[in-house]
Amino acid sequence: VVKWWNTVKNLTEKAWEMGRSDPRKIIFSAKLGLAMTLISLLILIKEPFEDMSRYCVWAILTVVVVFEFSIGATLSKGLSNGLGTLTAGGLAVGMAELSALGGKWEELIIIISIFVVGFCVTYTKLYPTFKNYEYGFRVFLITYCFITVSGYQTGEFFDTTINRFFLIALGAAVSLGVNVCIYPIWAGEDLHNLVTQNFMGVATSLEGVVNHYLHCVEYKKVPSKILTYQASDDPVYTGYRSVVESTSKEDSLLGFAVWEPPHGDYKILKYPWKNYVKLSGALRHCAFTVVAMHGCILSEIQAPAEMRQVLRSELQRVGSEGAKVLRELGNKVKKMEKLDEGDLLYEVHEAAEELQQKIDKKSYLLVNSECWEIGKRPREEESDDPQQEDEERNFLEYKSLSEAVLDLRTVEVPNAWEGNLTQSNNSSMHATNASQNMFRNQFYHKSNAVAKEGHESQTFESASALSLATFTSLLIEFVARLQNLVDSFEELSEIANFVDPREQRAPA
Amino acid sequence: VVKWWNTVKNLTEKAWEMGRSDPRKIIFSAKLGLAMTLISLLILIKEPFEDMSRYCVWAILTVVVVFEFSIGATLSKGLSNGLGTLTAGGLAVGMAELSALGGKWEELIIIISIFVVGFCVTYTKLYPTFKNYEYGFRVFLITYCFITVSGYQTGEFFDTTINRFFLIALGAAVSLGVNVCIYPIWAGEDLHNLVTQNFMGVATSLEGVVNHYLHCVEYKKVPSKILTYQASDDPVYTGYRSVVESTSKEDSLLGFAVWEPPHGDYKILKYPWKNYVKLSGALRHCAFTVVAMHGCILSEIQAPAEMRQVLRSELQRVGSEGAKVLRELGNKVKKMEKLDEGDLLYEVHEAAEELQQKIDKKSYLLVNSECWEIGKRPREEESDDPQQEDEERNFLEYKSLSEAVLDLRTVEVPNAWEGNLTQSNNSSMHATNASQNMFRNQFYHKSNAVAKEGHESQTFESASALSLATFTSLLIEFVARLQNLVDSFEELSEIANFVDPREQRAPA
Repeated sequence: VVKWWNTVKNLTEKAWEMGRSDPRKIIFSAKLGLAMTLISLLILIKEPFEDMSRYCVWAILTVVVVFEFSIGATLSKGLSNGLGTLTAGGLAVGMAELSALGGKWEELIIIISIFVVGFCVTYTKLYPTFKNYEYGFRVFLITYCFITVSGYQTGEFFDTTINRFFLIALGAAVSLGVNVCIYPIWAGEDLHNLVTQNFMGVATSLEGVVNHYLHCVEYKKVPSKILTYQASDDPVYTGYRSVVESTSKEDSLLGFAVWEPPHGDYKILKYPWKNYVKLSGALRHCAFTVVAMHGCILSEIQAPAEMRQVLRSELQRVGSEGAKVLRELGNKVKKMEKLDEGDLLYEVHEAAEELQQKIDKKSYLLVNSECWEIGKRPREEESDDPQQEDEERNFLEYKSLSEAVLDLRTVEVPNAWEGNLTQSNNSSMHATNASQNMFRNQFYHKSNAVAKEGHESQTFESASALSLATFTSLLIEFVARLQNLVDSFEELSEIANFVDPREQRAPA
Repeated sequence: VVKWWNTVKNLTEKAWEMGRSDPRKIIFSAKLGLAMTLISLLILIKEPFEDMSRYCVWAILTVVVVFEFSIGATLSKGLSNGLGTLTAGGLAVGMAELSALGGKWEELIIIISIFVVGFCVTYTKLYPTFKNYEYGFRVFLITYCFITVSGYQTGEFFDTTINRFFLIALGAAVSLGVNVCIYPIWAGEDLHNLVTQNFMGVATSLEGVVNHYLHCVEYKKVPSKILTYQASDDPVYTGYRSVVESTSKEDSLLGFAVWEPPHGDYKILKYPWKNYVKLSGALRHCAFTVVAMHGCILSEIQAPAEMRQVLRSELQRVGSEGAKVLRELGNKVKKMEKLDEGDLLYEVHEAAEELQQKIDKKSYLLVNSECWEIGKRPREEESDDPQQEDEERNFLEYKSLSEAVLDLRTVEVPNAWEGNLTQSNNSSMHATNASQNMFRNQFYHKSNAVAKEGHESQTFESASALSLATFTSLLIEFVARLQNLVDSFEELSEIANFVDPREQRAPA
């Protein structure tokens, strides 16, 4: 009994939680209950419409079938339902006339017609264009069979058709009335919110990726859920995953939203819902670079912590400016405002440019820094210890280029490579006073140790230096793609007649 | 009339095309027709089961509602349907006893109970876990209302419940019988094929991306459909897009497949369908790097054609080996065979290693090649013209690093940057005998020309050199991720008891 009680308590809590997080669900349930109650009042009707009361279950059935979460879905289902009923009724009446002519073959004709209609309707239904109207086809079939069969039994085709149609219309009307008049839930609004959320998700992911990268946050063991693209609760991951995944959700919301009449903030006839989906697509196009950047963190091939620190402030700035742009756009979408005057992208372009300049200056780090030190360029690192330098130079004589720039974690790379993906958490290292010299020393010793390692792993070690370049150029590519995003937004804001914040401010 | 006739002809052609490309659709439609015909034979029944014939429309209704394309879907719907009917019947009978006690409040009790039941059921239905069983909840509601209402009218609750339940069971049984016995269509098989297809799609995309990259195929105008992530018929794009998008399709197929009994090649009880989805997820994880590589082609920031040629054969090899591995795995999945002896990844690892070594050797191209020439390293390029070298050296004295490595198309970059994304098609250039020296000359002149260009564009120009590095390291990352894919495959092949090709060959 205690166990039972706990289960009940648990369920109640969950139900309560769901209701609190989205009160619309409670309202929707109450609305459905209300519509059904209204319809079931029909049973109280006595003379002279006894038939009405007798078959009122069809009206209830319609309510249950038609009532959907959003107005758009209810409308489109109601319409395809009504259309299905109407055409099926017509066809059934025609068929009945035909079968009546058949005399003693009447039954045979009816049964064959059911087969033929069933076949044709189902086959049409499978055509991709009609995917969204599946319900209508089912209703067509049900109606056709119902009318043919009960017509055959009673001999009253017209009455049946009319009665049934009236009841369905009543059910649909009550559903619609209740659904539209009482706290309507619009699919368009959901779509709008989804797009806004997507912006925030990508912004969070972007910031998270850049921060993780700079803090050398590593996955002790890359969650196999990420490797096999399953849901996981890493916030960086969920941010972009939801954007990448939201296509089908957007498409179905779009399918419903176009059915909705102008309402609330969306007062234009033929509101450009399509552009919201397009904007979200442009965002997705940006998000793919974030995915790739996250890939740099997940990768077995990692740039050493010290290298990342060189570009720290620039990366950070681009990351936060990029996220700021995304949040700003997200807010603009939410508030349905046009862009402010001035170039929204100015700051982030500046930041990206700075990053680019820095990486050009420091590009020797990405390949073979030793050779740079010997070259003619003025030193950027102080090398106070001439003996060490010599050591290094000697060392370079027998080390191949590919081994010269090494990940500090190289010793562990072979393991990682063999598939178990364990990597030591190196984040403690970057926090220490890892001066350039100290770095070089470590580096030197490690290099020697690694010289004994297998052939294959070394190849991937040397890729580590390029990893930073990859991360950086992905970040720059992200910035480049923002332009396209802003263009999409401007197109939307024009077509959808967003408020111009300047005009709004002027009269105030 | 001619117009009408054309429309009809068109439709027929389309219908025929659909039938030819997937004959299962024709078969399915015929099956549904057959099931409906069988059920409608009930109308011929006369005494003593007149009731049966009178309410046979309920059985037809069940067939229409339950009959689904795949066995798994039919089973799961049939079951939730049956369960909904049964519990609703029980509840309705209980409620009837209660309302009978109410005396003159009977109607009120019934109507209130309809509201309460409607509310609770709908609210539960909205809980995410129950998303797949939506139908069951609807059927529950319909049944409850039907029995309560018609019970109230006739006073015969038990009879109604039993009669209705029997008819529904009959409808479900006929549906199932027809659907399972005649040419069954399995969701599991669809899932299996989808995963196989995904492998081929990524392989095609990978090859396409590498080839396009090497041939410097550029989008004269990047299709805005790609920028906003809409369907497009670029084969490279569709290949990975379908993989990225197939999550929801996989999930729903998985939901149905787990309901299917062992059959055909899938003879294990509790067949590990989940692992197929996991494998596909691992593939998706690989596909994201292909997406990012495609991004390098779409990008406004492009590596010059000549640079790409340096790594030509290596990139090509990695690309084709990678695609080979994917195709091989896809075939293994299709044939349900275990891996052959020997390391499937050996070749591709070799190729990646070679690429890595080459890029290490040529890494000066990625940053600032001039400084390398001055350095101590033995020359890899023949520099036959000492005067030119001097010129270059002088030049370097006033050019900042960031400007030293330039995209050959830099002059056009400002346009691209301003958002219209037009880029000249440069592919003619790479075909010419662009020797290293000629390259350097061009390079030099362009650099000067560009020195007058705006500030912002230069930043992005200099990123062009890193673009090659990005492409390369993404390709290497792709290779690295293959290991994870192979692991997933091995897990699947173990659990699902794939055929071992060695064992198979031995007895033959």
